[in-house]
Order: sequence, then C-alpha cells, then structure tokens
Amino acid sequence: MAHPQRLHPVPGVDAAAADLRLDHLRMARTGVAEAVYAPGKTPGQCASAVAGLLSGPGAGPVLLTRADGLQSAAALLRNPGGTSVDAGSDATDAPLTTVTWRAGAPRRGTALVLTAGTGDLPVAREAAAVLQAYGHATTVVADVGVAGLHRVLAHRESLACADVVLVVAGMEGALASVAAGLTTAPVIAVPTSTGYGSGLEGVTALLAMTASCSPGITVVGIDNGFGAACAAVRTLALLQRDGESA
Amino acid sequence: MAHPQRLHPVPGVDAAAADLRLDHLRMARTGVAEAVYAPGKTPGQCASAVAGLLSGPGAGPVLLTRADGLQSAAALLRNPGGTSVDAGSDATDAPLTTVTWRAGAPRRGTALVLTAGTGDLPVAREAAAVLQAYGHATTVVADVGVAGLHRVLAHRESLACADVVLVVAGMEGALASVAAGLTTAPVIAVPTSTGYGSGLEGVTALLAMTASCSPGITVVGIDNGFGAACAAVRTLALLQRDGESA
Amino acid sequence: MAHPQRLHPVPGVDAAAADLRLDHLRMARTGVAEAVYAPGKTPGQCASAVAGLLSGPGAGPVLLTRADGLQSAAALLRNPGGTSVDAGSDATDAPLTTVTWRAGAPRRGTALVLTAGTGDLPVAREAAAVLQAYGHATTVVADVGVAGLHRVLAHRESLACADVVLVVAGMEGALASVAAGLTTAPVIAVPTSTGYGSGLEGVTALLAMTASCSPGITVVGIDNGFGAACAAVRTLALLQRDGESA
Amino acid sequence: MAHPQRLHPVPGVDAAAADLRLDHLRMARTGVAEAVYAPGKTPGQCASAVAGLLSGPGAGPVLLTRADGLQSAAALLRNPGGTSVDAGSDATDAPLTTVTWRAGAPRRGTALVLTAGTGDLPVAREAAAVLQAYGHATTVVADVGVAGLHRVLAHRESLACADVVLVVAGMEGALASVAAGLTTAPVIAVPTSTGYGSGLEGVTALLAMTASCSPGITVVGIDNGFGAACAAVRTLALLQRDGESA
Amino acid sequence: MAHPQRLHPVPGVDAAAADLRLDHLRMARTGVAEAVYAPGKTPGQCASAVAGLLSGPGAGPVLLTRADGLQSAAALLRNPGGTSVDAGSDATDAPLTTVTWRAGAPRRGTALVLTAGTGDLPVAREAAAVLQAYGHATTVVADVGVAGLHRVLAHRESLACADVVLVVAGMEGALASVAAGLTTAPVIAVPTSTGYGSGLEGVTALLAMTASCSPGITVVGIDNGFGAACAAVRTLALLQRDGESA
Amino acid sequence: MAHPQRLHPVPGVDAAAADLRLDHLRMARTGVAEAVYAPGKTPGQCASAVAGLLSGPGAGPVLLTRADGLQSAAALLRNPGGTSVDAGSDATDAPLTTVTWRAGAPRRGTALVLTAGTGDLPVAREAAAVLQAYGHATTVVADVGVAGLHRVLAHRESLACADVVLVVAGMEGALASVAAGLTTAPVIAVPTSTGYGSGLEGVTALLAMTASCSPGITVVGIDNGFGAACAAVRTLALLQRDGESA
Amino acid sequence: MAHPQRLHPVPGVDAAAADLRLDHLRMARTGVAEAVYAPGKTPGQCASAVAGLLSGPGAGPVLLTRADGLQSAAALLRNPGGTSVDAGSDATDAPLTTVTWRAGAPRRGTALVLTAGTGDLPVAREAAAVLQAYGHATTVVADVGVAGLHRVLAHRESLACADVVLVVAGMEGALASVAAGLTTAPVIAVPTSTGYGSGLEGVTALLAMTASCSPGITVVGIDNGFGAACAAVRTLALLQRDGESA
Amino acid sequence: MAHPQRLHPVPGVDAAAADLRLDHLRMARTGVAEAVYAPGKTPGQCASAVAGLLSGPGAGPVLLTRADGLQSAAALLRNPGGTSVDAGSDATDAPLTTVTWRAGAPRRGTALVLTAGTGDLPVAREAAAVLQAYGHATTVVADVGVAGLHRVLAHRESLACADVVLVVAGMEGALASVAAGLTTAPVIAVPTSTGYGSGLEGVTALLAMTASCSPGITVVGIDNGFGAACAAVRTLALLQRDGESA
Repeated sequence: MAHPQRLHPVPGVDAAAADLRLDHLRMARTGVAEAVYAPGKTPGQCASAVAGLLSGPGAGPVLLTRADGLQSAAALLRNPGGTSVDAGSDATDAPLTTVTWRAGAPRRGTALVLTAGTGDLPVAREAAAVLQAYGHATTVVADVGVAGLHRVLAHRESLACADVVLVVAGMEGALASVAAGLTTAPVIAVPTSTGYGSGLEGVTALLAMTASCSPGITVVGIDNGFGAACAAVRTLALLQRDGESA
Repeated sequence: MAHPQRLHPVPGVDAAAADLRLDHLRMARTGVAEAVYAPGKTPGQCASAVAGLLSGPGAGPVLLTRADGLQSAAALLRNPGGTSVDAGSDATDAPLTTVTWRAGAPRRGTALVLTAGTGDLPVAREAAAVLQAYGHATTVVADVGVAGLHRVLAHRESLACADVVLVVAGMEGALASVAAGLTTAPVIAVPTSTGYGSGLEGVTALLAMTASCSPGITVVGIDNGFGAACAAVRTLALLQRDGESA
Repeated sequence: MAHPQRLHPVPGVDAAAADLRLDHLRMARTGVAEAVYAPGKTPGQCASAVAGLLSGPGAGPVLLTRADGLQSAAALLRNPGGTSVDAGSDATDAPLTTVTWRAGAPRRGTALVLTAGTGDLPVAREAAAVLQAYGHATTVVADVGVAGLHRVLAHRESLACADVVLVVAGMEGALASVAAGLTTAPVIAVPTSTGYGSGLEGVTALLAMTASCSPGITVVGIDNGFGAACAAVRTLALLQRDGESA
Repeated sequence: MAHPQRLHPVPGVDAAAADLRLDHLRMARTGVAEAVYAPGKTPGQCASAVAGLLSGPGAGPVLLTRADGLQSAAALLRNPGGTSVDAGSDATDAPLTTVTWRAGAPRRGTALVLTAGTGDLPVAREAAAVLQAYGHATTVVADVGVAGLHRVLAHRESLACADVVLVVAGMEGALASVAAGLTTAPVIAVPTSTGYGSGLEGVTALLAMTASCSPGITVVGIDNGFGAACAAVRTLALLQRDGESA
Repeated sequence: MAHPQRLHPVPGVDAAAADLRLDHLRMARTGVAEAVYAPGKTPGQCASAVAGLLSGPGAGPVLLTRADGLQSAAALLRNPGGTSVDAGSDATDAPLTTVTWRAGAPRRGTALVLTAGTGDLPVAREAAAVLQAYGHATTVVADVGVAGLHRVLAHRESLACADVVLVVAGMEGALASVAAGLTTAPVIAVPTSTGYGSGLEGVTALLAMTASCSPGITVVGIDNGFGAACAAVRTLALLQRDGESA
Repeated sequence: MAHPQRLHPVPGVDAAAADLRLDHLRMARTGVAEAVYAPGKTPGQCASAVAGLLSGPGAGPVLLTRADGLQSAAALLRNPGGTSVDAGSDATDAPLTTVTWRAGAPRRGTALVLTAGTGDLPVAREAAAVLQAYGHATTVVADVGVAGLHRVLAHRESLACADVVLVVAGMEGALASVAAGLTTAPVIAVPTSTGYGSGLEGVTALLAMTASCSPGITVVGIDNGFGAACAAVRTLALLQRDGESA
Repeated sequence: MAHPQRLHPVPGVDAAAADLRLDHLRMARTGVAEAVYAPGKTPGQCASAVAGLLSGPGAGPVLLTRADGLQSAAALLRNPGGTSVDAGSDATDAPLTTVTWRAGAPRRGTALVLTAGTGDLPVAREAAAVLQAYGHATTVVADVGVAGLHRVLAHRESLACADVVLVVAGMEGALASVAAGLTTAPVIAVPTSTGYGSGLEGVTALLAMTASCSPGITVVGIDNGFGAACAAVRTLALLQRDGESA
Repeated sequence: MAHPQRLHPVPGVDAAAADLRLDHLRMARTGVAEAVYAPGKTPGQCASAVAGLLSGPGAGPVLLTRADGLQSAAALLRNPGGTSVDAGSDATDAPLTTVTWRAGAPRRGTALVLTAGTGDLPVAREAAAVLQAYGHATTVVADVGVAGLHRVLAHRESLACADVVLVVAGMEGALASVAAGLTTAPVIAVPTSTGYGSGLEGVTALLAMTASCSPGITVVGIDNGFGAACAAVRTLALLQRDGESA
C-alpha cells in the first residue's frame, strides 16, 4: 500500500519531485521503458526523474523527451553519459530534444522513417532517436511527398527491406497511403502539425491517415514521434521471438 | 422592378412554382446555364422549371440534377427529347440522375475523370453527364486509388493528354495529390462521402484535398460532381478563346 | 497502357463491373491481398469481383467484406467453397458479414482481440475472421471494459502470450490504454461507433485512442476491423522472417 | 432596484471596479461562496473585490483564483491574512495561484485527488486548495495514469476510504473510468489541456470522460479545478445533514 | 485465470451470450450494480443477462436499460417480478424503457429531477426509474426552462430541500446554470439531444453545461439519464455514512 | 409554490400532459406568446396544450408549430377555429405545419422574407405564418440567391420599404450579407439545412452568417423560422411605441 | 467603371492606401456608416482612411474600431476632434479602442447592455461606444450572470424600459436566454471568448445562444460588439419612422 | 536507386540540407516548378535550396515562398538576381514574402485577383507575385466585399475580360459566390484567416466557399495564395494549347 503525501496549505513547487511515481518495471511489462516527458517539469525535476530511473531496478534505456535546452543541460549535468539528439522543433514550436542514457545494444530489426517534407523532419528524428536508443538501426528518408511520386518510388527497395516503416507527414498525409501500397512491412503513420491553414494543426492528417484506403496502416497521435517509435519497438520485438507462439 | 407575390394565410404547396425565378441569361453571364436542382421539388415543379428554361430566352443545355425516378419521369413526359443518365446514388443514398435537354454540340476540350474506388463512380458519372451535356468528350477511369499505385500510373498518358482532370475520391482523398503530380492540366478534386467511420461523410476528404501538398489542386464541395463539371466547363472555355487577352 | 472505357450518354448500371481494376498482385506487394468491399456494389458485381480475384494471377485469401445477405449469397453461389462469418452489424447498422475463399494455411503468430463491451463484438469478429483467413489463430475475449478492471486483469496471461493484441472499444476507448500497459505485444486499437450521445459515433474513441498515455498504441479508423486485421497480418509476418535484416 | 451606472464617453479603466456586483449571499444560497476570478482584472480590482467580499454580509471563505504574481500580491497587501497556494500553470500557461482568506474550520468529509500525470498537478492543486479552504482534508496522489495500472491499484484503499474522488487527467482521460470502478464514492472528473496534438487542448479528455463506460462519473470543464472542488464541497455537505430528508 | 472462448470460423450469433462477463460484485465495489444495456443484444441475450445477474452472487437492483418492446418482454417473461418504466424515446428515437428487478428498499436521500422542456422528459424518467430502483424517492418537475423564469423559481423550495438535483435539458442547457444558483445540493446536469438545428444533437448543451458560470455543476454524457442517476446514487450514499471519515 | 407531481414506478405516457407548465403571461412579459412545439408530443397532448393556452389568462395568438398531420388534425378537431399553414418540410424532413388560433389584428410593421433557393421556402413560410399570426403583413420573395445577383437587385425597392428583413438561406448563406448592404432595415438571418455535403446541415450557413462582413446582421438557429419571426415581432413592436423612451 | 491599379513587382506596403475603396454612401444605404477596422492596417493607413471618410460625401459618424495605441494616436493626430473609448482587450488580447468623429446628435431609442461577467465588459463597452456615436443613450450593467439570478432580476425594470437589449456573455451564455424572458424588447446576444477551456474561445456561447429556448433572441459573431451595436442602430431606427409602412 | 543517408546519433541541424530532394522536373511534369517553402528552414537552407534549383536541370521560375526577412536576405545574397515581393503578413502573422528568380517571359492569359477587404491583400499579393513570376499579367482589386455591392459591380468589365479570377476573402467569403455570377472565367476562391471570432481562422470561409450556390467555383486551402496561383497557372496554360486535343 502506497503512502500518498498530504498536501500542505502552501506547497512549494519543489514538492512535485515527490509526486513522481516512477514505473521502473515498464520495460519488462510492456517492452518499452518509462520515459521522462519534459514539458511542465523544472530542469531539476527532469534531472531527478532521470536519476531515479537510472538508479532503480528497471531495465532498458532511459529517455528524456521533448526537452528544451535548460532541461537537457540539467539532466546531463547530474546524470553523465547521456547523448542528446536535437531534432529541432515541431510546427507548434515545441522543442524536440531527446536525451538517452543506457542505450540498448544493437537489436535485430530495422526501421525506415519517411517524411513527406523537410518540415516533418523534427518529428521523424525524434522517432529515430528513440528507435536507436533501443538498438534498432534506423534510416530517415526525408522530403519524399507524393507531389513528386518518383521520390518515394526511388526508395522502393528500402521499403521492401525495412522491418517496419514509419511515415511522418502533415497537410493531407497522403504519403502514408502510398507507402503502404509499396511494402509488406507494418506501416505506422505519424500525422504532423506541419503547414498552415487547412492542415488544422495536424487534425486533417490524423483524420486522413485513419481513413486511408490502403489497408493495414495504423496511426498514432499528432506529432507523436515518440509514440510511433514505441509502437515500432514493440513490433520489432517479434523478430526476437523464436519457437512457437501459443 | 419585380412583383413579389404576397403570401396568403394558407398557401397551397403548388404555389411554389410561382416562386421560381429562372435565371435565363446565366449561360451568357457565367458560361454555365441554370440547372434545375430536383431535391425538395415535386415532380410537377421539376417539369415546370425545365419547361420554363426550355421556352425562355436563354441558351445552353437544360439540366435536371439529382432527380429521383418520379421527378425525371415527370420532367421527361412534359418535355420530350431529354436524355437521362442514371449515375446511381451517392453514399448518403441520394439519387444522382441527370436529365439533359438541348445538349451542346461537341466543343473543344476533353476531360478525364478519375475515381479512387467504385463507390465514387456515381458522383463521377454525374460530373461526366454534365460535361457531355456541354459537348466535352469525357472519359471516366474508375478504381485507381493509391493503394495500388500502378493503376493510376497506367493512365499517365491519359493524364498528360487531358485538358482538365477531375479526381473523385472519398476516405482520405489521396488520389488528388498523386494525380496532380502527374499532369500539367488543371486538377479539380471532388471529395465524396464514400466509406464509413473516419471518413466523416466526406469531411476528411474535403480537408485533406484542400491541404494537399501538390500545388495547383482546387476543390469543390462534398459529392458535388455537378459543381466540379461546371468548373471544368468554365476552364475548358479558355480553349475557345483566340487572339490576345488583355 | 490501359484502355479507359468511354462513358456513353446513358450507361447502364451493369457497366460498373468493367470499372473494377483488380489489384491481383497486392498480396505480393503489401502482404495483404485485395478484398472486395461490398457496400455500393450489386450482388452481381460482388460475385464478379470475387470470381475475378479467384481466377487471377494473385495469391492469398479472397475476401468479400461488409456484405449483406444478398451480396454474400450471390457471391457464394457463383463462387463455391467460400465460408461466411456473420459478425452482426456495427452501431450504424451496417452489416458485417465476411466471406472467405482460399483461406490461408495456418501461419505462425496468434492474435488476441479484446472488446470493451458486447456491442463491440461485430467489429471484433470481422477482424478475427480476416485474421483467420490469413491462417492466424485468433482469440476473442469480449466484455472486459475497464469499469470492472478484474475482467481484463483476468486475461493478463493471454495478453502476455499474444503476438499481437487488438483492442476494440467505443465510448471513451480506455481499454486500449489499459491493455497496452499489460503486454509487450504491439497493440492495435479500433475505435467503434458503439453507444450513443457523447461517443459521437466513434469520434470520441478515435481521438482518445490517438491521445493515449500508454506509449506504443496505434489506431485504425472507426469500426475498421478489417484494417486492424490487415495491420496485424503485416505485423505477424515479421515472425516468418528469418536470418538478419539489413 | 439597482442603479446601473451610465457609461461616459471615455470611461477610465478604473471604472470597472464599480461594475462588480458582489454576490455576498452565494454561500448561503448555493453552499459555495463567490470567488474572485482574477484574469482580466487589474491588481487593484482584485484587491478591491476581495476587500468587498471580506467586509460584506456573506459567510464562507473568500478566494482569489487563477491569479498571477501581481494580482495576488496586491490582494494580499490590501487584505492581510490570506494564504496563497501557487499551483504552477496549466498547459495553456495560465497561472494557477489561489489565495484564501477566512478559510473554513475543519469539516467532515475527505477528498482524494488523483492525477494521471505530473502535468496535471497544477489543476489538481488548485482543486485541493479550494477544498482545504472549505475545511476538507484533501490528499493529492499524482502520476497514477493507467499506463502503469499498479500505481492506481496501490491506492485502492485510499479510493475506498475517500468521501469524494476527483480525477484530473488530460490526453485520453482514461484514469477516470478506471478509478470509478474502484470506489463507491462520487467521482468528479476534470479534463485537462495537458499534452499536445491529439489531446486537442483538453477536448479529447472532455469527450472521453463524458462518454465513460463507468457509470456514475460526472465531469466539469477543461482545466476547471475550481469548479470540481465546488462540486465536491456541495457533495460533501451531505455529510453534514442529519435527520431525515424529505 | 479466465478461459477465453476460441472463435470458430462461422460462429452463430447465439455465441454472444457466452461473451458476457457479468460483473457481479460491482455493487459492492462501486455502489452501483452492473446493468444490462439492451441495444445491440437480442431479446434472448437480454433475458439471459438479467437471469445471470439475478442468480449470481451480486447484490443490488438488476436493471435492463434502453430496451425496446421485444427486449423487455423477453426479459420479463424469463425473469418474472420485474417492473417496467416506459419513458418514451429520446430525440434520436432510441427507446428508453427501464426494467427493474430486485428493487432496493427505501433509502435515505431524495432526488429532484428538473427538465427544461417536455421533450426532455424521457431522459428524466429514465433517471428517475434508476434512482427509484435504488430506493431513493424522486420527484420529476418538467417544463421549467428559463424562458419563463417564474416556473423554476416556483420550485425554489423543492430545490432547497432536495439532497441532489438533476437538470435535464437540451438546446442551450441554461437551466443547469440557473438551478445551481438556487440550491446548495450537488447539481448533475444531463445534456439532451432534444430540439433541432443548432442544438447539434446535444453537443451544444454538453459544451454549455461544462462551461457553466455557476460553480459546482457536474455533467454526464448526452442523453445519459442512467449515468446521471448512478452518479446521484453514489452521491446520496454519503447520507448513509456515519461516524468520522478519514 | 407549485406542487410537483411524484413519479410513480410505471407512469403512463399520458401523464406527460400534467407535465406541461403553460406560460400564460409570456405575451405580456416578452411580446411573444408561448407556442406549442409539436415534436415529441402525442396528438392528444398537442390538442390539450392548445386548449390550455386558449382557455388561460394569456393574450396573443396561440400557435402549434412543426406539427405533422395527426398533430394538427387532433389540435384543430378539439380547438375549432384554427387556420393551418403547411409549409412543407425542412431539409431534414421535419414537417413544418403551423396552426394558428386567435390570430392578431393587423399591426403596423411589414416584413420581407427573402430566400436564396426554393429549398429554403418551407422555413420561410413558417416564419411568414408566425408573423402573420401576429398581424404583420409579410411578403415572401423566393429564389433570389446571389448566383444571379439581378434577382435580389430587382427587389431593391422592397428591401428599402420593409420594416424588417428576414433572409433564409442554406449552403454558404451569402444572401444575408448582400441583402444587408441594400437596406436600412434590421436583417435577421436564418441558416437552413438545405443542400448536401459541405453545407453540413446548416452549420456552414450558421458560421458564415455570424461571420458576415455586412455589419448589423443578426442570426438565429438553424432552420429556426419560428425564432426569426419572434425576433421580428419584438423588433416591429418598436413601431407601436410612441412618446420618448428613457 | 473603376480603374484597378496594376500590381508592380515589388509594391511598397504604403500602396495599400490606394487599395481602400471607401463606401461613402453606406449610411444612406444601410443606416450604418462604413467604419475603419484597424487590425492589419498601419497607423498611417488608419489615419488616411478616417480622413477619407471625413472628407467624403457620406453622412454619419466616422469610427475607427479595434485600434491599438499607435493606430488611434495617428488617426487622432491627423484628424482632430475625435473622442476615444478604450474598452480594454477581449479575451484573445485584441485591443478594443473605438475612436469616434462626427458623433451623431441624440436620437430616440435607448439601449441596455448586460454582461454576464466583468470579463465581458470590453466587448460591451465597444458596443456602447458605437451606440453612443450614433446618438443612442446606452446603459451598461455588468456582472449580472445567472449564477446569482437576483442580480439580473434587480434590473427587471431597466429591461422593461429599454428599446433594445444587448446581452454580452461568454462561457455558456445563459444570460441571453434569461434576459429574453424578462423583456419585450429585441434581444441581441454577443457571445464572447471570455473564460478558458470548455468555452472554446466563444464557440460554446455562440452555439448556445443560437440554440436558445427563449424565442426571439438573435445572435452576432464572437466578440463582435461592433456588429451588435450596428444591429441595434438599425433596430432603433424604427423609432424614427412615422406614418404607415406598406 | 537513391542512397538514403543514415541518421547519426547526434545529427547537426545542418544535416537537413542533405534531406532536400529537389524535384527538378516538376515544371515539365505539372506545369508549375518546385518552390522552396521557407517556414521551418534556416536561412542557409533556404539559400541552398534556391541554389540547387537554379543550378539544376529544371525549367521555370524559382520561388522562395513565405520567407521572413533573414530567409529572403540569405537567399538573395547567395543567389543574386532575385526580386522580392513583400506582401505583408497573413492574419496569423506569418510573413508572406515571395522571392523570384528566373521569372518567366510574358505569357498569354491574364488574372484578376479580387479581395473582400484590405486584410486579405497579403494573400492576394502572394498569389499575384507567383502569377507574375510565371509571366501572367495580374491585376489586384482590393476591398470590394459584398457589404457594398457597387464596389464589385464597378469591376464587372474586368471580370468579363479576365481569363481567370481569384477571389481572396475571409469571414463568410461571400464575394466568391457573387463574383462567380458575374464572369464566365474560372473562379478560384482562397479562404483567408482574416478577421476574428466566428471566422474560426478561415474555416468558416473554407466551408462557405465549398458550399457556394454559384456553380463552378473551386477552392484552395486557407491562406493558400501560392496554391491558388499555381492552379491559375495550370488553367491559363490552356491558352497556349493549339490544334485539337484528344
């Protein structure tokens, strides 16, 4: 039985550290370890959460996601040995830096991440950083939107070889439908908030991708490169299974 | 100055015929003649409106659109010489029969109408019927959705030859983006209510098509094959222009 | 180069059969074969399309999906040897019968399909029928919504053993988030139109599932059991891969 | 009969103080006293409104809500004796400081406030501050989202003991459905704007919570910790009732 | 560990009965017993589910909700002793008959159910039927919408006496805000799909009620009289608590 | 103090008559009398409600609105002397018959009702019937949509003379903006659900009319001809005022 | 025939002044004069537009609306004699200063402007400034939201005397429905973006007001105090009409 | 076969340049050349992309769109000879500078760009800059919104002469419907985010324009002046065609 902390009349902001309930065994339970989501946390809280996960009983990589400069600096200072991927910002200007500690050894299973435009690269890179933290070789091919179909067709071989394909696209998100018709691999689509106007900050792409005419596409939340990578990690884990499954 | 009719306390439904204000000169003014939109009109009103347009000072084809069986029968009985195209129903079960009187002589300019699936055919056929009423040779190529890209690529030559391309698609509407990358012709996209669930009765396709990454696509309303054809007729009229424009 | 058919002024409805462009090689290209989507087709067109796929060069199961009674009867009469799964109707009263011809031999990889309520069963059964057509042993566990958490916890072992998990849920769709915390398998969520009012015919579940706090969930379209199964088939195909991937 | 003030051609901003119509008897009438909502008011107006309530005929605590630093400082300077709870900011960066004067004596009835993530803490703390101002012992248990179900299950005993439960969650808001299955207490859900993308700034959680499969959940507005606390105060007042009700 | 049933290739529709996982202990766990939601179930399944709950280890009333004529007849035939409340239909024409078995003995705590218009009565009566099944005396006061404020003001005394107030209203739902200003009781608002046009089938009322300016209103889903009653039952249970709570 | 009726366990549907709380003095209080809204009421309830209003202390016309054939017949049978205006149906197929008893003597103030298309006539006629019941001479000019601008310009003189103008339009509702630029009269816009697809059942017109670039347009709910007429009656009442107002 | 200016390759921003097409006769044509909408214009353009209107053939007051400090300063400097009403900002932080030149002589007809909260005052004051510019005595009564019904009831006499009533309210906008039940005057409702979360920046109030149960309310756009005032000016002009209208 | 670059653990932001896949042959394939969309690119990346296009095998103008000051400066510095059109900002404050290199020789076909208000000018000027880059004489006529109909009617002759008409309008977008009734030219409507409140940042205009009652209007995305110009360029290319088309 846990011991919830009582709220004092005037709690300091620092009290929030005590509010973290680290899920140390998530890696064993779900195949992806708990990550520290930086937005809304002070740099100190980010550092503490990372430290807690590193010193806990859990396995798997420790990730700090969507961190800004101060958050990643504080976390790296207190927890040496991390490596940082600065993916830029998404279209809503949220910083997309991912810091990794205890990165996994190389694992079987490769991912191919396609983006429709260069504006989708930050989300794609966040996904790639997470996949690499789990040990999966990952290739990013950017700017292959369907307005010039030859660009994606030029990567048909990569599509055929990949074990899992992520398609990162904003606006109308048509690249997902096209790519899914060119590969037998599972296709995970990430709608992005790239663009302006009718893209409705990613809602248009989200709807379009879930309404795709290409059977077998699955979709994650808007700008959710992290979630797409986690889904890919769960998927690629099937390559580790041997013997018969029930 | 017009003489508006006074509303009597208990107007009969028949009074509606007097409420029609036929726009006889629309063909001269806008390049497309007024058409009779059947829904909400009695068969008798449909027949009267067609008769009024046929006997009026206006030019151009006379069309009865979105008629059901009774409406088209009544209109044809009173106004002999019409030809009827029964395009089936759209995904909301609205009947899509178009009846044409005074069809135009063949005019320069050909249209290519692509559909993503067979469910989009009724809207495509309505558009084709309108284009043909204006004298434009029109070809419909159905079921070339992007899930199997080779299907649309097989029609690359048709795309290159067409003077205007209409793309009729529901669900995520990705065919519009792909087709626009394969032709120099103007591309008019028609979102349809085909499908179920996340297609949101055509809203998803409408948003996606207006957010397309392929520059130069224009879009009409959901299931609006008639409007797309009118836009195509206005466009193809440029081929009749000779000499320098200002 | 294909030969698009010209639209004659008054095309008969039967002409639609010629509009089908069967994608015989989709199985080889994408890992899932083209299926015949019944809505909007006449019984005769359904039967023809199935016949065309059966006699073509393609491999894999031939499926007729979302068929009503007449459509499945006509298709079975013309193409003997099919087996039919009548899954009932979804919450919008669309019939969900799936007919399978040339079902696949048993393949490695098992699927677990969870539903939140009994109202989600038709969509779950459609997904199961498709998975079984591809040879994957599939178990459906219904009515384990989170209002009584012990129900899903009782199936923790099944969750741990499954190679892929489908979660079919309407209303707020919370079962997806909970299930994903209890398994290392990929989790594919299917929002359904089950329920009334605030469920907004599946839109609420669609949004909620894509916004899930459990990392690694992916989502398909509303009521799209077929699409979820196709995604699962693509995923389970990883179990057939041997040797190193690039 | 009130005497509405006439608007002069160029009213100063200070005139707004005269526009306040303090509802001194709201505590008696509704069980919760009028509070001063800070946004849109100058620091001086905040101070004046608090002073007006303190010196008026009304009973109950006097609260200044959603104040920024200047507003709370001005109000505390003019009205000594207040205590301030700085809860941080909600996901839209609105400051969530609550200042309390004339806090109530301890009253029977305890509240348990659960949050799905640490990002939901500011709204949870605002709710707790209001509940404590009315004399109710309140415990906040943060970061027990359903991705790691053991976290909320560890508090099953607290859930069983609480007289009222508030669930503060953004994203898909699934914690509300789960918690409601684990307690007989009334459950008040607060959707928050925490997160990004598909959470749609709280709209997703709002829809999901009102569509919950767990019967007996009620919901307040997005980020409305104050409203949830007021509802809880009304609810806990039932514990003060003795004898038979009609 | 549960034993999930395997799905056979062509399962009969009857198999669904086996898919029910009755939550016999929900009454003890949450204060409200599991109810049988009729839509989507055959009459036989409704009868079976009721029989299962009646013969199981659980306590509390057994309810069949939103049943049509055949469903309630079948359930009453197999399970004698039930009483039926035919509340009419909601604005989407869904039948709202509630059948009760094992109704609870009278319990302390009275509910007042207000409706804005007579069109809101069916949902109000469904709520009342559920409250009465749990033993709570319930009064329905209909047609007291705010267009004629004297109507609700005439019931000010009832509002002051009630232990809990339910407000059932469609269109703009303003009655909830007004009623909450006239009572100290908890106020549970039920948006309904009553009306046409701008009411957007209840969405307008749902948004308006959650945005209410009257602090302390809570809201359930559109047309969800059952859920509102369950929330009221949980709330009124506080009147049964004696001694100190933690 | 009113005496709310207790709900008996199995109330008959007839009990609803007792639930009506007729607002006899609404005419004196608001300038428009209470009307009986037929949908959701039995024919008998409609008849009773009309009888109640006719025999009560109130003044002004008694109206039964949106009645179907049975409802109007029953009401007229029990309450002789009514006159019925059958306006047809709105685009959602709701019948729009208005029955009037105790119609007002002619009053100063004329209304001009414009419609964009003939499909908007039913809503326009409902508005006209209500205005005439209050004694205001009303002219309906249909089918003057902006696609042929000369049609509305032909009525410029009528626009200049009218004391109030109602504009009834679906689709994009542009007629409201145009008409408001041609008259000094107050302009009340009624968005209708006329049309299909992108009109979104009137939502598009509602948004467009409230976003109009013509200053001074006001808007009522979708298809709400009754509400528009009531607003016009309130407006025209200013013509009855004499002497100085405060 | 107008002479459209040709666009030069690199037009200076100043060229925009030439793009203004002042509608000098709008006062005569519509009863309200053209106003200069400041957002998007440079201070110089604001000053020029005002100067153009003042020196043109038109009648009526000249207004600069929604100006920020620089815009109003520049306009006043170049055009002496204006008076400025600084109404504060709306909830989206847009400045709401209205500057008036050539204000009208007092005219018959008084307006009462109610606001639900003090946050609605800026929009209310903008409306009042416009009404006063046209010569109408205008009273603003703020903070009479329905949570404390006595506040609006205290102004029942003012409601009865006013010639037109404006109701300015955000959140759920219920004040409009209540006020319309207490006056025979036309009621114009202005939804505001006041508040946070479920108010959806005014969309909730807009929907609620157009769905009001009080017949005869009309609505303008979100935060559109200017438009509401223009509608009121058109309405009050009826008081100037004498003799019989047609 | 392309050579996708591998993602290194800590890629520098500069790596993005390598991610550009310039579509050199887009002019030949689609009639409009690839343009460089500036948002999300560093000044250096903008300059590189322009340089790449200029030195590549492609034909047609090279455009940098939606550039801010730094981006256009860097691009012009590295690639001399460009000309810049600073169109101002759209209503979401996005800068709308277009820089053109290798502008086309004059081509047959003139465009008329109408705007409803001066706030729509930036988007209109962006469209004009693109059209002029392709060699088409373009005239912008601003501020001819339908509130003063004489303004657009004064340009009836220009409307009759233009080969293509663009209508740029926010708010309710009614100008598109009106203009389409006054010309035989194709009409391309651009909804803008101009205005506030009910305009919903362009969504209202987008919906209204696609629901237009004037047949033959086509629509592009919100604020998408570039896309509208590209559609116009494709359309005007028909004037270059000579001889018979197939």
